[in-house]
Amino acid sequence: MSTTIDMPESNVGKAKAVVVGPQRPGGWKKGVAIMDFILRLGAIAAALGAAATMGMSDQTLPFFTQFFQFEASYDSFTAFQFFVITMAIVAGYLVLSLPFSIVAIIRPHAAGPRLFLIILDTVFLTLATASGASAAAIVYLAHNGNQDSNWLAICNQFGDFCAQTSGAVVSAFVAVVVLVLLIIISALALGKR
Amino acid sequence: MSTTIDMPESNVGKAKAVVVGPQRPGGWKKGVAIMDFILRLGAIAAALGAAATMGMSDQTLPFFTQFFQFEASYDSFTAFQFFVITMAIVAGYLVLSLPFSIVAIIRPHAAGPRLFLIILDTVFLTLATASGASAAAIVYLAHNGNQDSNWLAICNQFGDFCAQTSGAVVSAFVAVVVLVLLIIISALALGKR
Repeated sequence: MSTTIDMPESNVGKAKAVVVGPQRPGGWKKGVAIMDFILRLGAIAAALGAAATMGMSDQTLPFFTQFFQFEASYDSFTAFQFFVITMAIVAGYLVLSLPFSIVAIIRPHAAGPRLFLIILDTVFLTLATASGASAAAIVYLAHNGNQDSNWLAICNQFGDFCAQTSGAVVSAFVAVVVLVLLIIISALALGKR
Repeated sequence: MSTTIDMPESNVGKAKAVVVGPQRPGGWKKGVAIMDFILRLGAIAAALGAAATMGMSDQTLPFFTQFFQFEASYDSFTAFQFFVITMAIVAGYLVLSLPFSIVAIIRPHAAGPRLFLIILDTVFLTLATASGASAAAIVYLAHNGNQDSNWLAICNQFGDFCAQTSGAVVSAFVAVVVLVLLIIISALALGKR
């Protein structure tokens, strides 16, 4: 009689162990989620800085030629307009993603918010990289010019303009690197559990 | 007596249900892995096509001017050189990633190869997007020129060259879209299980 009573008790114990199994006390997941939040703040700063620096880049030369007065602003180049709009959109997305990052801190084991973040991060990483790289191509041309197409370097005239746009491009690539890190962190948190 | 015997049996049933729970017969995961493999083949084709089209873009105009003979090739533009090298690297990575994709088909529930693929895919997505976007910026300039910096459009002279480079850029963006899809698919497969 005692053996038949012992059996169910040991079974109940096993069942409990199995139920508890998947819910490890993953403190490192909370740490990862907090790091995600901090990195996101850094990416917001970099993206906003890039958009603002590029948006305020403007230089009018203090002399006239026989042709016209020289003025350069981000409006002059389609790639720079695209850059300002895109980096503003990326910064806006990153601000809106902060609540989801907070949900991931509160519930470190929920896969939903992490999946949502990794997918949208990938899309906006592509957007940020595209705008940063196209602006970088124009900045490179402005610095070096191109012999074969007879495009002359404009940075000896527009030094301040070139410095501002170069800074904006560097800031954009900081945001890109942080977004790549965010995706890698989210993937690791999704994969190991 | 009969009631006390029924109790343990129902407990055993519950315990089994819990143990079986996490190991679903995830046939959709195998399907996702096969789709990953096929998309990867498409991305290889797009990346190789982009690198080859850009690498073979070359046009010499059949007339001289008083200055020099006009010739345009991908060598003329740093962004295009970067494009050829980068797309070749991305295509090489995608070929090397095929074995890992096959491992993911054979073992659909293993997180390791999927994590490896999602992290490297993100890095090479960034590389492919950067090269595609910088080449796109130059192609746009070649088509439209720029008033403020006095860069003239060269596509009326170099029509074939512009068509080839534009095609290469489009092909690069096909590869970028496929890489984004690959990352989203991998993230979904990692997250839902």
